[in-house]
Amino acid sequence: MRIAIDAMGGDFGPQPIIEGVVEALKQKDFIAYLVGDENKIKPLVPQNLLKKVRFINSEDVIGMHENATDAVKRKESTIYKSIELLKEKQVDAVVSAGHSGATMSLATLRLGRIKGIKRPAIVTFMPNIKRSYTLVLDVGANVDCDANNLYQFALMGEVYAKVVLNKEAPKIGLLSNGEEDSKGNSVTKETFKLCKAHCDSFIGNVEGGDIFKGEVDVVVCDGFVGNIVLKTSEGVAETISTLIKQEIYSSGIFQKIGALLLKPVFKGLKKATDYAEYGGAPLLGVNGCVIISHGKSNSKAIKNAIFQAIKYVENDVTKKIENSLKVH
Amino acid sequence: MRIAIDAMGGDFGPQPIIEGVVEALKQKDFIAYLVGDENKIKPLVPQNLLKKVRFINSEDVIGMHENATDAVKRKESTIYKSIELLKEKQVDAVVSAGHSGATMSLATLRLGRIKGIKRPAIVTFMPNIKRSYTLVLDVGANVDCDANNLYQFALMGEVYAKVVLNKEAPKIGLLSNGEEDSKGNSVTKETFKLCKAHCDSFIGNVEGGDIFKGEVDVVVCDGFVGNIVLKTSEGVAETISTLIKQEIYSSGIFQKIGALLLKPVFKGLKKATDYAEYGGAPLLGVNGCVIISHGKSNSKAIKNAIFQAIKYVENDVTKKIENSLKVH
Repeated sequence: MRIAIDAMGGDFGPQPIIEGVVEALKQKDFIAYLVGDENKIKPLVPQNLLKKVRFINSEDVIGMHENATDAVKRKESTIYKSIELLKEKQVDAVVSAGHSGATMSLATLRLGRIKGIKRPAIVTFMPNIKRSYTLVLDVGANVDCDANNLYQFALMGEVYAKVVLNKEAPKIGLLSNGEEDSKGNSVTKETFKLCKAHCDSFIGNVEGGDIFKGEVDVVVCDGFVGNIVLKTSEGVAETISTLIKQEIYSSGIFQKIGALLLKPVFKGLKKATDYAEYGGAPLLGVNGCVIISHGKSNSKAIKNAIFQAIKYVENDVTKKIENSLKVH
Repeated sequence: MRIAIDAMGGDFGPQPIIEGVVEALKQKDFIAYLVGDENKIKPLVPQNLLKKVRFINSEDVIGMHENATDAVKRKESTIYKSIELLKEKQVDAVVSAGHSGATMSLATLRLGRIKGIKRPAIVTFMPNIKRSYTLVLDVGANVDCDANNLYQFALMGEVYAKVVLNKEAPKIGLLSNGEEDSKGNSVTKETFKLCKAHCDSFIGNVEGGDIFKGEVDVVVCDGFVGNIVLKTSEGVAETISTLIKQEIYSSGIFQKIGALLLKPVFKGLKKATDYAEYGGAPLLGVNGCVIISHGKSNSKAIKNAIFQAIKYVENDVTKKIENSLKVH
């Protein structure tokens, strides 16, 4: 297994990325193709691991606030070169914590879509009350979707849930404004019919709150709604955390002691909802495995993104998605 | 001021509703028109308040799980009679904790829309980090909206924010998948142009997380997205609360002591996010003041819903909405 990693694109430079790669190399067998400024990244790799690492030199990093539209012209950039390695089949997967828009558009343009797939979709992992994850897609790639797009997201989500959640028959839900069959907007009502007719695992409409209950494994929506769900969830969690801190700050000594005693509890909560536990969001529907990680990823996130890539490739998700289209 | 209250429609029967009315009557000067089974509700009203109460007998209650489409035929129901009192100008406002779909459709059909308004919208109050509220509309009435519908929601939201948030120039944001001007789906991009051109208080696109930051006063979206935002927010808050309880339950004695000491903190948090603090969501855009409360409303929620109705009427929100259309 060969995995290309954009070693420079993250918000914090190469350090946490290389640390994550090193951790991953200690636990799994693969060759890491580190794309970046060799002078900067080589010193970060321990001597004894150098035989498992290839360096692809690139000094052009697409900045987080640069426009993604130029990405396709910057052929020397770390992201471009990483994707190109995958296109040329020199590697089996790409992990990038760089500019996500650039990664998405380069992956789509340079790798192309899986035969039959109209639109690739980003699938994210939302923590649920069962201490597992609910997959939500699309969360950003497509703002205007038709029913067929959403239906294909359901199929791709099903394939991926089987692999990453280890479920034989993951339950697929369609995000709507109520769980009754009659609910939905004009596009989701049409999608409902397609899923009902062709998707055995379809359990019907689900509501926003169902994402967190662990009774549905895959929640399907367009990228506009998916982004809003993601940002709303983060916003609520942050707000609750801030309000708790404010209350503790303005309360008495006993509450402050209580807060200290409860530290392990909040730590446990943090772990249950920690992004780094899965580390990245795959772009499903392109011809190859591309895992997009947060710019703010720490080493653990990068390590787990690499493990996700390994799982993706070992299970041949790309092929399975193509096959899922034929069955239906 | 005369306010009709559906005294029977809530999930818990007339008791909490009448308690809320009684509390409100003690604090504000108005006449309560209690619509319901007089034999059941009259004994709940203290003797000394009877002069401020009128009883409108009705024994037909539309159940929460009944279909709203029949509501228009059930002319003896508590909701129908309440709305009819408003239509006939025998009261100035309606507060209903009954079947919300029935209330919405009866209000729209029987009262009609404000001249020029294409679609009425439900506006809800989301708690934010500034210990105030962000108004979000629409949260349920309209699943498929065009740009003009959303633009009118912005205008109505602006009018209402001035009244309930006491702000001279409330900030209006358009919910989107990113805050850059270029973000959005085809409908919101069109809405963006309309708001930019005609709405002085428009601050541009906002993200899901911005709802809770208190930097924007009114967030505009269609009812499909609004419902998902609402349910997602509730889901995240419930999940965090459950995870904290699980962690405390499975932790040691010190953590349990810590949790006890922190009780006032969690109480403070609960108050900051308590639905009962505002008590109901108005249906903006119909010809008259209709406040829709949760079926699960307690007496405090009903009291505050009545106070909201009083504010609505005192500030002549209906007229102001009509005028806002003329200005633009």
